[in-house]
Amino acid sequence: MTNAICRITVLPDRREAIVEQGTLLQEAIAATGVAVSLPCGGQGRCGRCLVRVEDGPVRRRASARLTPAQVQEGYALACQTTIEGNVTVYVPPQQAEHVPSDGATGAADKAAPLAVACEHRAEPWIKKYALTIEPPSLDDNTNDFDRLRRELARQHQVADCVTTLPVLQTLAGKLRAANWQVTAVLEHGNWQAPDSAPRLVDVCPGDTTGRTLALAIDIGTTTNVVYLVDLASGALLDQASAYNGQIACGEDVISRIIYARRPGGLERLQALVMQTLNGLIDDLLARHGLTPEEIYLAAVAGNTTMIHLFLGLDPQHIRLEPYIPTVNHPMPVTAAALGLHIHPQATVDCLPGVGSYVGGDITAGVVCSRMAEEEPVTLFIDVGTNGEIVLGNSEWLLSCACSAGPAFEGAGVACGMRATEGAIERVRIDRRTFEPTYESIGGAAPRGICGSGMISLLGEMFVTGVIDKSGHLNRHLDTPRIREGADGPEYVIAWASEAGNGNGNGNGSERAADIVITEPDIQNLLRAKAAIYAGISVLVHSMGLEIADVERFIIGGAFGKYIDIDKAVEIGLLPDVERERFTYLGNTSVQGAAIALLCREHRAHMAEIAKMMTYLELGADNSFMNEFTLALFLPHTDLDSFHSVKRELVANGRG
Amino acid sequence: MTNAICRITVLPDRREAIVEQGTLLQEAIAATGVAVSLPCGGQGRCGRCLVRVEDGPVRRRASARLTPAQVQEGYALACQTTIEGNVTVYVPPQQAEHVPSDGATGAADKAAPLAVACEHRAEPWIKKYALTIEPPSLDDNTNDFDRLRRELARQHQVADCVTTLPVLQTLAGKLRAANWQVTAVLEHGNWQAPDSAPRLVDVCPGDTTGRTLALAIDIGTTTNVVYLVDLASGALLDQASAYNGQIACGEDVISRIIYARRPGGLERLQALVMQTLNGLIDDLLARHGLTPEEIYLAAVAGNTTMIHLFLGLDPQHIRLEPYIPTVNHPMPVTAAALGLHIHPQATVDCLPGVGSYVGGDITAGVVCSRMAEEEPVTLFIDVGTNGEIVLGNSEWLLSCACSAGPAFEGAGVACGMRATEGAIERVRIDRRTFEPTYESIGGAAPRGICGSGMISLLGEMFVTGVIDKSGHLNRHLDTPRIREGADGPEYVIAWASEAGNGNGNGNGSERAADIVITEPDIQNLLRAKAAIYAGISVLVHSMGLEIADVERFIIGGAFGKYIDIDKAVEIGLLPDVERERFTYLGNTSVQGAAIALLCREHRAHMAEIAKMMTYLELGADNSFMNEFTLALFLPHTDLDSFHSVKRELVANGRG
Repeated sequence: MTNAICRITVLPDRREAIVEQGTLLQEAIAATGVAVSLPCGGQGRCGRCLVRVEDGPVRRRASARLTPAQVQEGYALACQTTIEGNVTVYVPPQQAEHVPSDGATGAADKAAPLAVACEHRAEPWIKKYALTIEPPSLDDNTNDFDRLRRELARQHQVADCVTTLPVLQTLAGKLRAANWQVTAVLEHGNWQAPDSAPRLVDVCPGDTTGRTLALAIDIGTTTNVVYLVDLASGALLDQASAYNGQIACGEDVISRIIYARRPGGLERLQALVMQTLNGLIDDLLARHGLTPEEIYLAAVAGNTTMIHLFLGLDPQHIRLEPYIPTVNHPMPVTAAALGLHIHPQATVDCLPGVGSYVGGDITAGVVCSRMAEEEPVTLFIDVGTNGEIVLGNSEWLLSCACSAGPAFEGAGVACGMRATEGAIERVRIDRRTFEPTYESIGGAAPRGICGSGMISLLGEMFVTGVIDKSGHLNRHLDTPRIREGADGPEYVIAWASEAGNGNGNGNGSERAADIVITEPDIQNLLRAKAAIYAGISVLVHSMGLEIADVERFIIGGAFGKYIDIDKAVEIGLLPDVERERFTYLGNTSVQGAAIALLCREHRAHMAEIAKMMTYLELGADNSFMNEFTLALFLPHTDLDSFHSVKRELVANGRG
Repeated sequence: MTNAICRITVLPDRREAIVEQGTLLQEAIAATGVAVSLPCGGQGRCGRCLVRVEDGPVRRRASARLTPAQVQEGYALACQTTIEGNVTVYVPPQQAEHVPSDGATGAADKAAPLAVACEHRAEPWIKKYALTIEPPSLDDNTNDFDRLRRELARQHQVADCVTTLPVLQTLAGKLRAANWQVTAVLEHGNWQAPDSAPRLVDVCPGDTTGRTLALAIDIGTTTNVVYLVDLASGALLDQASAYNGQIACGEDVISRIIYARRPGGLERLQALVMQTLNGLIDDLLARHGLTPEEIYLAAVAGNTTMIHLFLGLDPQHIRLEPYIPTVNHPMPVTAAALGLHIHPQATVDCLPGVGSYVGGDITAGVVCSRMAEEEPVTLFIDVGTNGEIVLGNSEWLLSCACSAGPAFEGAGVACGMRATEGAIERVRIDRRTFEPTYESIGGAAPRGICGSGMISLLGEMFVTGVIDKSGHLNRHLDTPRIREGADGPEYVIAWASEAGNGNGNGNGSERAADIVITEPDIQNLLRAKAAIYAGISVLVHSMGLEIADVERFIIGGAFGKYIDIDKAVEIGLLPDVERERFTYLGNTSVQGAAIALLCREHRAHMAEIAKMMTYLELGADNSFMNEFTLALFLPHTDLDSFHSVKRELVANGRG
């Protein structure tokens, strides 16, 4: 017996779809083309997928997130409710809008040099060779492939090469159409078989050796970034970024892993991230007038769960004790096998990780930081949705991970946004009037706040007394900036009249609104910074060291182009040590991926570094929860460990 | 503007389909599920796709094959006629029946040893390893793949291994479902990278090391053969054969290449051969209670065109001067990439060929014959739809190819069939009464004649005077066996009352008919044997040798289990030399493929042999046409070169 068929109508846009009786409301709504995000992965925990059933029968699972009054008014959690007949539901616009649309890519820094230069002489995996081939004749009837190989040997001393069936399937036609004047694209081995015979990836008409394009990709839990790199010159040609489309299925890795358990869940997550990446790639290609077939290599960095989902590997055992991934260092895969919009025969190379909670993005960061090549004890922090921390030097490396949440990436914060044009990235608050001044990326009208802006804002609010050490707004200050909003007290950073089109979520159809920070936003940021600081403390202490023993702090992450170290110390995200010990490297994950593209030697080094790193499980001792609780205050419960901040508070009359 | 829609009705079974106006009649008929074969590849040359238009408008292209009277009666060539409205056509049963249905597989010789034993110690590419793996714990949280590799090293000294994404995608689940007791299936390199790290092809629950299955495949232009081989024991477990489904698109390689030029033609040819092979594989699997996932390797031998079509490579330049294939030695390909019904990650290894008209089937034959390892000058002949001949020894090898046609494989002969149960394989004709006696395969009621039966029959008919030296039947003999049939004079080998169900085409729904050989059949056989003999002559003379200088003649081919050498000499297929110089090896192509499965060393040797062979283009000199014309008589125009046959004719009073 099959289920009955029901019609679902989604308001306010009256979108419709036909689904089976018993379909989950969230899936039925998705079938109409409207996305409802499931920040907790559809477990009914977060209550963020609330919709109102206007008409028709549904079945709700009991949920602590719904009050009887809400049920009375028709409210339902889309992830916990099934459709039992023809149904009309109202999806509040903010539900559908919570996740900004993909494809809103960052401002391009054309042909900028890579932030971390490759010191080894660049020796990329992919090289191009121009060939003029003598056409066959009755006297010289060598087959097409051997003829091409013969010329590679004669003209370029490439002793041998192999290829794949799809390349052979078009070879005869391509050689003749190009009148035997072609460029051969060769991949010279890969990390798994660096000394194997080169592989013919493509044959193009004419001489295209001028540039050899590849992509460095960072798959963050919240943000995805793609760099377009020219292997021939080593130049970064362009970049693009967007939120990971998987956010609709959960905000953190655990929620995504739970989502992957559903029938078709893993496939959906894989499809969503591929959609985000392909959107970014298509944008980059369009900007430069390129076709996917011109991109011959991609290096991918991401945490272990993101890489499992990207490759379609079941991530369940990452979440279940004893926390085992299928693989730390996946083999090279062709783009065709994944559906990535580059040359189908191009290799997609996922960088090696350490374990379930320290992935290839961190290996990439350690390579960027150069900490594993030098003597001073260094601490590397990558702040993303997870915060990963590595401590060590050329002798030893110890790592840990803590769940920070996506606040510093602009998600889970009302006016948060990625570090793209119009994002507020720096704030000053007048110590008397509490009026803010700000700088936005590109000098554009502000649309929201990015991670570096939030750190700057939070620090200013704290040292000026706009918020207290628990993060609560001071309602007694004489300023219209502090007011009661829909989610409780909030502070207005920019009035609607100053703001750019729409809020930070980038939906151009909205009218401009005030840009605010709410108390719930502040609590999210406090939890994020406390998790990072607690991780730093536990890691350092576990080696019998004190924070003062750490000679360098290298910071990577999703803050945007810069982070104001003073402000990060003021809020207690970073420890209060001499400022010259800090270096901010930006997105070290995507930079590490770019280095892997450009240099075989560095790529080989990554595998060694990943093997060398020891992983410390924070869940295994109580000290992390203790440190976390201590760090939930501004800057910290123990103000004496933040002496420079203490001095400033005293100077401001707040000591 | 799109074309109008027409209905086609095919008689006598009243099958119907809807097609676009302008569709080729052959394709419209195919759309109803009725196959009409195009022996000439749809060029309108052979006239064998004749159908009768009963009703409705069609448009005929002019063809010399249709008389005005035929057009008047409604006849049309299905390959040269388009549909211009609703049409009813009558397809004569023999048109649809000319190609036997696939899947009629040969009688199995269970667990027979391979005809040519492998002298090297068998060292197959695929080996299985039983593993008991310690489950992970918090203290030992190595990832799944590295854990498996660690045990392979510990328990079996396999230092390292790599794998592919599909294997990783199921690894976590398989290891846990099997409670960490598994068998790892490893491929130890391939001919292209014999020393590369072994590749994990599969992980199975429990211990399945008892047998390791693989397939040896021969893709003949007319006949496809599959051997099921156990690599662990070296035993041939079973075999199956059927006509190549591509016959519907042309009988010889040239017709197929022409067919491949049509839009979708190459894809169709590839799909047809895959359908034939998968039918054979499915039969073998069903007989032995196996699943496709239990077959871990396939070696494929075939002529260069067959291999191009099997791999989806455009074969056009094989036909056009200067006759260039895309590749002689294709790279290993996964079964998934081709759609072959074995383990998707299994390697499909196509054996190396020499050039456009000497393929991997011949390299396989030379390896079987061992001629390249010994000193005596040897001549190897593989009789199939093409006849390929190799002359030489361990010092030199010269090869040529001549188009023999499919007569010896039972196709293109009215009562021809493959060498399966019920095939007449040996005939004696009484010198006085002209009554035949025969032996059929399996002792079953006769259903048709196979290749060895045709040679035996032709030889008997000639030495008894039933036919003259031009192959014409003697109408003056006093026997009811010689009579006028639908296609001219014919000789009855078995009356309907003796015959098995249906004729040789194996269609069980038919009523038994007399088994006959017609004058057109005899002419086909004469052309086939003349082509082979002419090839032998030209090759031997081109080296400055005489036939008497050849110390051994090794014969492979599609004759069935044996060939009567005396009879083959009587008809002039083979030269008249001492009988002990001849050896018949059967299907050397599939046997060579089996050797390639079983022994890495032999497989490597094949690549060397292929490179060592020189190809002589018979089209390039006139001597082949001269020799062919001389050989069109029984046994030959020059009876003196067939002294033993001459003696016998004299003894029979026919000298």
